[in-house]
Amino acid sequence: MTISPLAPDHFPDLPVIEGVKFASGAAGVKYKDRKDVMLVELTAGTTVAGVFTRSATRSAPVLDCQSKMGITLDGRTAIFVNSGNSNAFTGAAGKQSVAAICNAVAKATNIQTDRIFTASTGVIGERLPHDRIIAKVDDLVADLSPNGIAHAAQAIMTTDTFAKGTSAEVVINGETVRIAGIAKGSGMIAPDMATMLVYVFTDAQISQADLQTLLATLTNKTFNCITVDSDTSTSDSLMCAATGASGVDVTHSAGFTQALHRVMLNLAHQVVRDGEGATKFIEVRVSGAASDADARKVGLSIANSPLVKTAIAGEDPNWGRIVMAIGKSGAQADRDRLTIRFGDILVAEKGWVSQDYSEDAGIAYMKQQDLVIAVDLGIAGGLGTVWTCDLNHGYITINADYRS
Amino acid sequence: MTISPLAPDHFPDLPVIEGVKFASGAAGVKYKDRKDVMLVELTAGTTVAGVFTRSATRSAPVLDCQSKMGITLDGRTAIFVNSGNSNAFTGAAGKQSVAAICNAVAKATNIQTDRIFTASTGVIGERLPHDRIIAKVDDLVADLSPNGIAHAAQAIMTTDTFAKGTSAEVVINGETVRIAGIAKGSGMIAPDMATMLVYVFTDAQISQADLQTLLATLTNKTFNCITVDSDTSTSDSLMCAATGASGVDVTHSAGFTQALHRVMLNLAHQVVRDGEGATKFIEVRVSGAASDADARKVGLSIANSPLVKTAIAGEDPNWGRIVMAIGKSGAQADRDRLTIRFGDILVAEKGWVSQDYSEDAGIAYMKQQDLVIAVDLGIAGGLGTVWTCDLNHGYITINADYRS
Repeated sequence: MTISPLAPDHFPDLPVIEGVKFASGAAGVKYKDRKDVMLVELTAGTTVAGVFTRSATRSAPVLDCQSKMGITLDGRTAIFVNSGNSNAFTGAAGKQSVAAICNAVAKATNIQTDRIFTASTGVIGERLPHDRIIAKVDDLVADLSPNGIAHAAQAIMTTDTFAKGTSAEVVINGETVRIAGIAKGSGMIAPDMATMLVYVFTDAQISQADLQTLLATLTNKTFNCITVDSDTSTSDSLMCAATGASGVDVTHSAGFTQALHRVMLNLAHQVVRDGEGATKFIEVRVSGAASDADARKVGLSIANSPLVKTAIAGEDPNWGRIVMAIGKSGAQADRDRLTIRFGDILVAEKGWVSQDYSEDAGIAYMKQQDLVIAVDLGIAGGLGTVWTCDLNHGYITINADYRS
Repeated sequence: MTISPLAPDHFPDLPVIEGVKFASGAAGVKYKDRKDVMLVELTAGTTVAGVFTRSATRSAPVLDCQSKMGITLDGRTAIFVNSGNSNAFTGAAGKQSVAAICNAVAKATNIQTDRIFTASTGVIGERLPHDRIIAKVDDLVADLSPNGIAHAAQAIMTTDTFAKGTSAEVVINGETVRIAGIAKGSGMIAPDMATMLVYVFTDAQISQADLQTLLATLTNKTFNCITVDSDTSTSDSLMCAATGASGVDVTHSAGFTQALHRVMLNLAHQVVRDGEGATKFIEVRVSGAASDADARKVGLSIANSPLVKTAIAGEDPNWGRIVMAIGKSGAQADRDRLTIRFGDILVAEKGWVSQDYSEDAGIAYMKQQDLVIAVDLGIAGGLGTVWTCDLNHGYITINADYRS
């Protein structure tokens, strides 16, 4: 598979997060000769928060994680992930597979099953070959190491063309708090999360309830503002684990909130940059809306429009299609108060193309890899930003034969 | 341009509708050497009903038609359409172009401007070269003929690969009532209408108010149940003109309602069959929903899912993606009560793939050109059907360089 042209140069060096150990390996769930299972062990006292897909047909692991979230128990925590098969729409067998994996991990680590969170990502509707996975658990436990995060990022990939990771540090009262995160996802990506698995680790100290609130708030500004293809996965899971090992209480810390926001936004952008077939990274900024909710509606309508996305794939500054997408969004809009910009280029205003706009400038702008489409609705102060990619032949090629 | 593989064998022979005359010609609005303007003259006493796009950025001709709809005036009526330029998002100039065309038609036909309805379809945001159009009006008036409907169907085409027409007859109290309709549209097609222009003519006798009610009801069962790409046009217009020439009052006639429904559904299906790049015609039947509205939500979620549509393009019976689309629809759903069928093949039930399902049977089914995806949600009696096509490389190719 060709690496996305929008990929970062290299996987970053991520700091060790005290209290977190990783292991990964190849269980042969679906892929041959590549890592497809990841185990994370979190030290005793770690608080864990999670946000999950709202799909009505969510997967067995998601349902299991949700049932365990917020339970307070002493002792260590484990996260176990496989790629290649999502264990979604697998009926009663799906639940049995989750239980089998949790039991195997519990036995090998001596962690309580209620503190073992699993995730599965990949094809929907096929029985998870959990025996193959369980056969690897002892090896994984033996391999646990504070340095394994880069390999873990590889093990959770499906159609991803690059592993995704980022980190941040923040100094609070003279003490350093570290955050490191990994993510996977490149198709079936839309708000209410995506085919995404995201794991963020920090040595900060924070209660489960506060971490959960913070995670939910920041998800709405990051992962819920990206879309590749408007399709929402049955498996989306975002978890954040705070080991407390730094000894720094970050409750209501603005610095920690900003650092976590930066990590989550960076990972969300990396998911878009790996959008299936993507050649352009697009930021859609909406201002002047009747409300923030209306701004989001307009942003998503533009970002999800196949006609806008194919025009951008063709490097065509087809602002008429942006007008169309605004019109269909359901948000309050007035043709004659709209302003549309490509980057700094004023394209349209007062219900028509701007007198200063030159098509040559628009065409030149569209040749860039990172694009900004800014729409001001001229109604009130509602704001919102959404990130997406173009819709290209690559998306069709990848998805017309994903299973074969 | 290659004709869609889903096109009918030929344009049908449409009956003459007494009281309706057609003319068409080449004004060179955008296309070279093809018909791009159509004039229809309707006899005095004709009632006209219309349904239009709900886009907040609708075109100048749509706004003009809506302002004239329902006005009662004696005398004849005219409909004037150009293709190649939609006169949408053209500011004050757009309104001036509509007025200029209406005045020219009024002068040449002696029809009042309030009884002249126009439509424009094509690229958004470019000034309509109405002088070229007006220069053709006298020729069109001179050419008016009861037999010109087939050429009119050609003149309104944009990216369409075939002209669309159909007809029906119904005998009421021993008298024959005739209906004939034409349509255009192949991209930017989604409920709340589409990039569609539809004109239906009948010699039935019916009041404007009754015709308007009937048209709105039937639109919800036909044109508002099709989707090609989830994008909604700024120009959609559907008009129905009843000349009354048959002398048959069809008010509340079940036979007439059924015949008009048949004509509208046939035209709606033809629009889907000409979906940009389409190679499959897909009927999504939803039953067992909590309500009809929920059934429609599920149907549209499946029909608009890029992942479902690309799987079908690849002839992959990927029912997991249908589960995904049901899950994200927002409708009430329970994984364990779902039943999914491809045609007569039972694919999934009770939260998992059916024991009787064979992948070979699914693959063989997907090779057909016309497909039925049937979903029963197992909750209550809500029903709905939606029609769509696959998402193929052809769609990308057409839309990544539409303007060039």
